[in-house]
Amino acid sequence: MQSQVSFDLQGEMIIGGEAVKGTGGALRALAAATGETLEPAFGAATSADVERACTLAGAAFDTYRQLPDERRAAFLEAIAQAILDIGPALIERAHLETALPIARLEGERMRTVNQLRLFAGVVRAGRWHGAVVDTAQPQRAPLPRPDLRLRRIGLGPVAVFGASNFPLAFSVAGGDTASALAAGCPVVVKAHPAHLGTSELVARAIARAAQETGMPAGVFSLVAGEGTWIGEALVAHPEIQAVGFTGSRQGGLALQRIAQARTEPIPVYAEMSSINPVVLLPHALASRGEQIARDYADSVVMGVGQFCTNPGIVLALAGEALDAFCATAAQALEKKAAATMLTPNIHAAYCRGIAHLAGRDGVTTLARGADASAPHDAVPVLLRTDASAFLADEALHEEVFGPSSLIVACRDIDELQTVLRRMSGQLTATVQLDEADYGYAQQLLPTLERKAGRVLFNGFPTGVEVSHAMVHGGPFPATSDTRTTSVGSAAIDRFLRPVCYQAVPDALLPDALKHGNPLAIWRLNDGELSRA
Amino acid sequence: MQSQVSFDLQGEMIIGGEAVKGTGGALRALAAATGETLEPAFGAATSADVERACTLAGAAFDTYRQLPDERRAAFLEAIAQAILDIGPALIERAHLETALPIARLEGERMRTVNQLRLFAGVVRAGRWHGAVVDTAQPQRAPLPRPDLRLRRIGLGPVAVFGASNFPLAFSVAGGDTASALAAGCPVVVKAHPAHLGTSELVARAIARAAQETGMPAGVFSLVAGEGTWIGEALVAHPEIQAVGFTGSRQGGLALQRIAQARTEPIPVYAEMSSINPVVLLPHALASRGEQIARDYADSVVMGVGQFCTNPGIVLALAGEALDAFCATAAQALEKKAAATMLTPNIHAAYCRGIAHLAGRDGVTTLARGADASAPHDAVPVLLRTDASAFLADEALHEEVFGPSSLIVACRDIDELQTVLRRMSGQLTATVQLDEADYGYAQQLLPTLERKAGRVLFNGFPTGVEVSHAMVHGGPFPATSDTRTTSVGSAAIDRFLRPVCYQAVPDALLPDALKHGNPLAIWRLNDGELSRA
Repeated sequence: MQSQVSFDLQGEMIIGGEAVKGTGGALRALAAATGETLEPAFGAATSADVERACTLAGAAFDTYRQLPDERRAAFLEAIAQAILDIGPALIERAHLETALPIARLEGERMRTVNQLRLFAGVVRAGRWHGAVVDTAQPQRAPLPRPDLRLRRIGLGPVAVFGASNFPLAFSVAGGDTASALAAGCPVVVKAHPAHLGTSELVARAIARAAQETGMPAGVFSLVAGEGTWIGEALVAHPEIQAVGFTGSRQGGLALQRIAQARTEPIPVYAEMSSINPVVLLPHALASRGEQIARDYADSVVMGVGQFCTNPGIVLALAGEALDAFCATAAQALEKKAAATMLTPNIHAAYCRGIAHLAGRDGVTTLARGADASAPHDAVPVLLRTDASAFLADEALHEEVFGPSSLIVACRDIDELQTVLRRMSGQLTATVQLDEADYGYAQQLLPTLERKAGRVLFNGFPTGVEVSHAMVHGGPFPATSDTRTTSVGSAAIDRFLRPVCYQAVPDALLPDALKHGNPLAIWRLNDGELSRA
Repeated sequence: MQSQVSFDLQGEMIIGGEAVKGTGGALRALAAATGETLEPAFGAATSADVERACTLAGAAFDTYRQLPDERRAAFLEAIAQAILDIGPALIERAHLETALPIARLEGERMRTVNQLRLFAGVVRAGRWHGAVVDTAQPQRAPLPRPDLRLRRIGLGPVAVFGASNFPLAFSVAGGDTASALAAGCPVVVKAHPAHLGTSELVARAIARAAQETGMPAGVFSLVAGEGTWIGEALVAHPEIQAVGFTGSRQGGLALQRIAQARTEPIPVYAEMSSINPVVLLPHALASRGEQIARDYADSVVMGVGQFCTNPGIVLALAGEALDAFCATAAQALEKKAAATMLTPNIHAAYCRGIAHLAGRDGVTTLARGADASAPHDAVPVLLRTDASAFLADEALHEEVFGPSSLIVACRDIDELQTVLRRMSGQLTATVQLDEADYGYAQQLLPTLERKAGRVLFNGFPTGVEVSHAMVHGGPFPATSDTRTTSVGSAAIDRFLRPVCYQAVPDALLPDALKHGNPLAIWRLNDGELSRA
């Protein structure tokens, strides 16, 4: 019996179930609020470490994917419990590294834990097998039909690149890891340099859960390193069969290029950039523009604007109601405090982005929030332009990650629709409407559903529910693969492929496809869904 | 009312429902058996024609995808009927152009028609919507859950490149077209130059069906042209959102590169190359090697070996039983007649491929079929080597499209498994076994299912059933996307993407997601499948 993996932060990686101090140089985590370096120093991976993590993942795949559903579900639940078992140390470290508020991080931990439990439920429910049975028709003329059965199996080991803005829910044990493990795929995570300590703690929790539930050693590894070589090495490794990524467009596209240049190309699920248009329809704007304006200002600054679903663009018809809306939103935003961003780089990019945007032709600055009081504080900014300027200038379509938003005044609903059509793919599209606006909504809906993965009414896009019907995805460049979601139970589909079994004797069939349906799962039997 | 599209062969394309004589130069179809040019001359597309076809497809998309399921199903059934209505002229023309036997083409027409009808059934059954409902939880703490609903919609217009070896079932109205139309995606087909006349006739049938059932004009177009520019222009066109292709690895990878280089990359579903290993397990080989050998020879030459699932490789343990198998198979193959291949190019590639393969170190020619009697006749060939030669020489892993196969003698089951592991991705993997071989099969199955889209027992891979459980796909380079199938009802999944609707009023929800489930389709309601 191996000794239990400890929860102590020691600047180590997890490779094949063991804590390993990398010898590829020292890495230091930074305190987001102050920029000071934090203890302990981390040992970075060598290329041999990456090689070992991937090779172990490859070796674990056949064992892991063939475990009974219950074993895999128990592993996911054990990870959830182990994360809770770390206790306040996890929240404190994440707060130090990201400057995200304690309450937000506690909420995010619960989200992470619930997400793992959701996927345990998905595994147990068994629909993930996608079982299909077409029974033999030996008498069919001119040719008999053989017995045909389909199920899905994992793609193979998955490389995961976590996001800076969700150090728990979209990082080491986040949505990509949970859905890949649920699909039967071992995972190798590259630690995000902006939260190395948080990453190590969570990796230790996964390693302990793997140990407790008897998983094969290579089912999970965490590697850390500076620069792009480590990500490139992971994505290029022949054992890696898919990639989950949340981050910048530049980063996602770079991984995509590496994946496509392999001898055997692999899918990359990159969640990249989105400006999340919010459409204010005329009656809603007239009847409750003030309330919407205040909620909008709250949504823009929520989490220092560091959400993929931040409402970066508002579209509405020009006129008095919009002017009043702008005035209220500006007033609300001016009262918003500046707050520390996740990293100095993100803060610098925000400042550059805002300066660039505010300087474009036809763009007016409506409001700025309170002045910064700390070095990496972002000041909220509200801008306004009109549709013709927006349509003429691609720069206005770019995401500026942080607490800013641009209001675009349109001449009429047709021009508003033209603006939507000319926008690139989005994670979300929001409509504020009253019943009297349904006609407009009907006109816009076909465009909205083609542009975005999620269409939402009378709310704001920040806040992504983890459930069965969620789609956190969308057309390029919101993501690299519009056929998928990275949040919610359907995220498991990304890591599965179908296999057909023809005339395979019952004794050799996987349980999901055996004649007696021993797993009692839903199957498509000769075209009819049934649990019999 | 437009006049009905005629079924006369006139060397025309179909663009937006109208027969159009291209002005981009004259194309001629060739008689496969003689190499003679056939009447009439075809007018090739100009780039303006391709532009128009794609633009019309884009314009048709919103109308077409929002039609009720019943309308779309009726359209697919009308296509099936119109293909039958062409009558013997279609079979005669296909026979002239491909040299495939009349009976085979009649069977293929029935397969094509049944495939269209299958997809009509898939559309009506409504599972394709993938409807998911998570009901609101307004009382949930700390935050209420909004009403969330998911359905799938089409990706957009699809470009289809048909296969030379299935001029009906994998061409103009073949599996890619049927599944794309079923998914609500307009289709633009590039006519295969090896069966231009067959393509025109089927395109006319689709155009007539579209007219009869009141589809938007751009729902279907057929364009024709020489060289690679036309395919490149199609795949690069901004309105095109996905690509279906069946053909060579070179061709598939070229389209993939174009698709990835777009401003907005799109998925390419390319079905490319496979050598379809057949494993003979020891007891089966000993007990019924002779019968398997004869069936194997039949499978190798079926359709002049021009199937993607042709059994190109046999793996078995060296010994007397394998020697006897080789002798019987050689004897059977020597009696097989040479037969005309689909095109002079395919014939030339086969001759080159065989000469190359037969000349490699360690490869013995076991048998050759009867001599050719016509210019593009392929002579069947049987070759033998051993595992060490096979493992040492990548050239032996390459597909040679045509009636040939290579028997690889392995020292023991572990070496056989090593050979399987070292092979690249395959459409199929076959096992011949008796009950006493189950232990071996159990050892090999995890490798087989990782290597192939379909694993079949005691049969031969030629013959691909069109049903719900079929997977005609597999890891690269068998296809460009192992998550999919190009045959069977699951092929529709390739052309769909999920959209989530959050807090959308019932009046504005699509029927598939309305509260009362007016379509009476299966939906995942709060995690439980139900038709209520």
